[in-house]
Amino acid sequence: MNYVFQCALPPEITLGHYLLHRLRQLGVHTIFGLPGEFNMPLLDKMYSVPQMVWAGNTNELNAAYAADGYSRIKRLGCLVTTFGVGELSALNGIAGSYAEHVGIVHVVGMPPLSAQVKQLLLHHTLGNGDFKVFYRIGSDVAEYTTVLNDSETIAEEVNKALTIAYTRQRPVYIGIPVNMINMTVKSSLLNNPLDLGPSVRNGDVENQFIDAVLDAMYRSENPAIIADACVSRHGLVEEMRRLVDLTGFPVFCTPMGKGSIDEQHPRFGGTFLGSISSPQVREVVDFSDFILVVGALLSDFSTSSFHFAYRTKNTILLFSNHAKLKNATYPDLELKAVLEVLLARLDPTKIRYRPQEFSDVLKPKLKLMNNVPLRQEWIWSQLTSWFNPGDIVITETGTSAFGINQSKFPSRTRCISQALWGSVGYSIGACLGASFAAREEGSDPRVILFVGDGALQLTVQEISTMIRWGLKPIIFLMNNSGYTIDRLLHKKSNAGYHDIQSWDYLRILSTFGASHYDTRKVRTVGDFLALMTDSAFAVNDKIKMVEVVLPPMDAPPALMEKWLLEDKISGAQDDGTDDSLAEEPSLKRVKLGEGLGLDFDDLDDNVSSE
Amino acid sequence: MNYVFQCALPPEITLGHYLLHRLRQLGVHTIFGLPGEFNMPLLDKMYSVPQMVWAGNTNELNAAYAADGYSRIKRLGCLVTTFGVGELSALNGIAGSYAEHVGIVHVVGMPPLSAQVKQLLLHHTLGNGDFKVFYRIGSDVAEYTTVLNDSETIAEEVNKALTIAYTRQRPVYIGIPVNMINMTVKSSLLNNPLDLGPSVRNGDVENQFIDAVLDAMYRSENPAIIADACVSRHGLVEEMRRLVDLTGFPVFCTPMGKGSIDEQHPRFGGTFLGSISSPQVREVVDFSDFILVVGALLSDFSTSSFHFAYRTKNTILLFSNHAKLKNATYPDLELKAVLEVLLARLDPTKIRYRPQEFSDVLKPKLKLMNNVPLRQEWIWSQLTSWFNPGDIVITETGTSAFGINQSKFPSRTRCISQALWGSVGYSIGACLGASFAAREEGSDPRVILFVGDGALQLTVQEISTMIRWGLKPIIFLMNNSGYTIDRLLHKKSNAGYHDIQSWDYLRILSTFGASHYDTRKVRTVGDFLALMTDSAFAVNDKIKMVEVVLPPMDAPPALMEKWLLEDKISGAQDDGTDDSLAEEPSLKRVKLGEGLGLDFDDLDDNVSSE
Repeated sequence: MNYVFQCALPPEITLGHYLLHRLRQLGVHTIFGLPGEFNMPLLDKMYSVPQMVWAGNTNELNAAYAADGYSRIKRLGCLVTTFGVGELSALNGIAGSYAEHVGIVHVVGMPPLSAQVKQLLLHHTLGNGDFKVFYRIGSDVAEYTTVLNDSETIAEEVNKALTIAYTRQRPVYIGIPVNMINMTVKSSLLNNPLDLGPSVRNGDVENQFIDAVLDAMYRSENPAIIADACVSRHGLVEEMRRLVDLTGFPVFCTPMGKGSIDEQHPRFGGTFLGSISSPQVREVVDFSDFILVVGALLSDFSTSSFHFAYRTKNTILLFSNHAKLKNATYPDLELKAVLEVLLARLDPTKIRYRPQEFSDVLKPKLKLMNNVPLRQEWIWSQLTSWFNPGDIVITETGTSAFGINQSKFPSRTRCISQALWGSVGYSIGACLGASFAAREEGSDPRVILFVGDGALQLTVQEISTMIRWGLKPIIFLMNNSGYTIDRLLHKKSNAGYHDIQSWDYLRILSTFGASHYDTRKVRTVGDFLALMTDSAFAVNDKIKMVEVVLPPMDAPPALMEKWLLEDKISGAQDDGTDDSLAEEPSLKRVKLGEGLGLDFDDLDDNVSSE
Repeated sequence: MNYVFQCALPPEITLGHYLLHRLRQLGVHTIFGLPGEFNMPLLDKMYSVPQMVWAGNTNELNAAYAADGYSRIKRLGCLVTTFGVGELSALNGIAGSYAEHVGIVHVVGMPPLSAQVKQLLLHHTLGNGDFKVFYRIGSDVAEYTTVLNDSETIAEEVNKALTIAYTRQRPVYIGIPVNMINMTVKSSLLNNPLDLGPSVRNGDVENQFIDAVLDAMYRSENPAIIADACVSRHGLVEEMRRLVDLTGFPVFCTPMGKGSIDEQHPRFGGTFLGSISSPQVREVVDFSDFILVVGALLSDFSTSSFHFAYRTKNTILLFSNHAKLKNATYPDLELKAVLEVLLARLDPTKIRYRPQEFSDVLKPKLKLMNNVPLRQEWIWSQLTSWFNPGDIVITETGTSAFGINQSKFPSRTRCISQALWGSVGYSIGACLGASFAAREEGSDPRVILFVGDGALQLTVQEISTMIRWGLKPIIFLMNNSGYTIDRLLHKKSNAGYHDIQSWDYLRILSTFGASHYDTRKVRTVGDFLALMTDSAFAVNDKIKMVEVVLPPMDAPPALMEKWLLEDKISGAQDDGTDDSLAEEPSLKRVKLGEGLGLDFDDLDDNVSSE
């Protein structure tokens, strides 16, 4: 393919054009960020690159979240900010992409080299002539950091940075002094595709490792496969499915891996939430003699949402660029390569395990009277039948990130949440990014966002960008009057700092200039059932917002169990003024979820049998 | 005074209480930030410290801006965030406080020490067990950084950090592992006031320096005094005035020093804007044989807004903690001490200079027909008579930060803008902080905000916090349909990236839950004149928002002159695709404003003589 010919490019193009064309080759058609003095000459180039869209966000943090959400669907996202103020505002978003392994190209427009050399006190500096401080800060949350100040190597550096972002699924930082944007490079370089294959391969190590994996797989009597976050990051959903088909092993996903395995697959066993998993899931995972974690992000982790450690010692973890087998670490084993070899060498006839039926992980739906006020326990299970194949479902850190694990997805459903980094407000930006990505797909899948009222307030203005571009997400605003997850985690649940200003949420769309939109408010079971069966509502023909009115202390049951137990454990030592968190939250969480059941007494009165 | 007795404190109090009481002693009665897992035990203490308010912001960047705005009125502000996500989101705000010398105490709730020691993969970490990365990043924009992990020194460390923030007017970073919050310290320590005096004094150096200053002052025939940013930061407005009274020298302020000198003082000559100052100001400053810059922030600086360098070699710069006299630097000379000694030793009879009349810096008001559409040139001069003594006026980076220099303030007016760091959206957060500070003053002065539509969108949700607390700023929304300052600075002024989504701005207050408010929309000279003479509007009895409808390319004249000239200079070499900024913006700016006058032809038709 002759890319230069296809795009009718002259023999020499600017660095700005070169960068944008390289991004386009990797499938990036929307770029996020805000204009600034030092990046505007780059933005000017945007309009002459075919199919390239400058999203124009409302602030840089939201833009970083948007690039992250876009990347989780497209495998790469790009964010453009300006020196100092812009890049620092985006930092928390980039750190989240780093922590959760998301491929991001962060381009920062910098002052001209001459100003840097002379240490001029330009604005957006700290006033001390140090031009490198922001670059240093950026390096802490980037897999690769470069400043394009040598005209001899600029094309090479762009290639290198983009390749790293794409193959390692981590942010890279590219600083471009504004005077370099119009330096020229040969457009013919674009005819050489970037090398996106595994960077290093050692056949001996690979084979030795695969031998060990296969040996353990063949001998296992109670195996389990767990799909974690990096399966979808590296585009390995299909390989994942083939592994399950070939082995017949039960497969689970982690909260961050939701969407990486078809939940309609007969071998799908549910979501593994560590100690607070459902009894059916724990029964299989906790007693398995072999666990293969594919696309592992972490081997052991504890968050305000989830804690999990794998109990069997026979755990094999396939990380994106290394692997762990019991206590041995194998560096330089890339996930994609390992999976390919494993699938090629796997001989199903040698597998000892014979698939056993397991009970459906989802509780039967409660049937409630129409006038019963809504509660999350009921809502999340109702949604299962409302989701469509291909949907992109985004959940905010907080009660929604828990609740979604109570829903079972149709095939090809994708899921975005930021369970590890857990930056509140992330989901609104991610929803913008995912909505752009969805529109770039021919099938125009639905993008469905679940966000609490507390989180929405942090990043609300990015809804304006959705409206500006005619994007059509369906937004469920879970209004429980404040930071409910904090209320639940922290025993002083009635402290004033959990409360927020009450907004007229359904006026947000029109205030931000929407003219074609749909808003609803649901308070009762009857309201919600009517919504779920309204076929007009289910279509993504315009932006929609549903305000779901919930009690302030309502949350999905898994979280509630944990909270109540935590309360019970720490209650004894409570002196009435101090709090449990001032001790050791992580240790306490390890003890949680030892399988207690909860009676929802106040619900029971309204339940009839289905 | 026995503080412990006054507050009825027990002999032992928690570290959390100790910190809050120390802040209270320094006049901090409002604390900004958001709750998070690792800071909630600290927030619980807030409710048992008299007169302490937890503002509860909508996001951390806004909270940092608010703490900065509060500090610019009260000399100290406090921000509480949580580990990782929270502190990184606030970073750009803290960097602004660092660059512009604003005293901020940034308290970060951290994971318990045990988790750090074990390198547990808690949430809000990068997943690599590195707990120090955020602390390292924080250190880059802090004057002092500490983590309170040694129970023996916690009180001492709190004292040290607060003293540095207050006396040096810079941010300090205090990390508190959550398990340390309830460590106890003796409350009697609070009876010893913090030592806020100059940290080091060297009488010999001081006298030698003052000798040189006095010598130059006595001999000068064309002197000028310039009040810069750090006068108000260090609470030296009264000393500044005495200096002018005693010397009779003409006094000017920089844009960042506006509000540091009474503009009604007979010796006030106007605002010094470097090369784009009015001819009357340049006449005095550029030809002076002696300039004393009090509270200097920078000796020479160039921003997208202003460039200035002092022309005479006889310039004495009094920075907050050092001084420059011609080419000599005097370290360890603190501004407050220097001013005190200077005032004590100054003998007015030895001054050679005799005050000369100078013409009023403000152009006579244009009188326009009522049906003429509004333009900034006219608006800013109209506002002069509308401002009241004691007002706090806040202007956003952009056209407002220019325009305000066309207005002459009544006595005791205070002004907040972020001219050096220039983070767009800052003013909304700063307005919240200043509004809290204003309410804490018995006189309840008006807080008046000028913000463009583009900037408003970045941080709009902080208006919700104003409503929540019943604060009553008067917000002028200067609606020029996008990022006009960028349009003006960058020649491709019709590029799509300058445009923003059009909002129904006047619905924002009600959408955010306001029930008691006032909104207006003004389009013409007649509308604006009616507003300025409406006595009900002028009272700060409720939150108010005025949408000022302006043409997209309208800006105050100083900026326009500069832009047009810049365009002229670079026009010759423009090839139609590239842009002037890709060359050297700072160098070009040095050449600007060489005193050209502008004809506003289209205005002239509508002008009648006053």
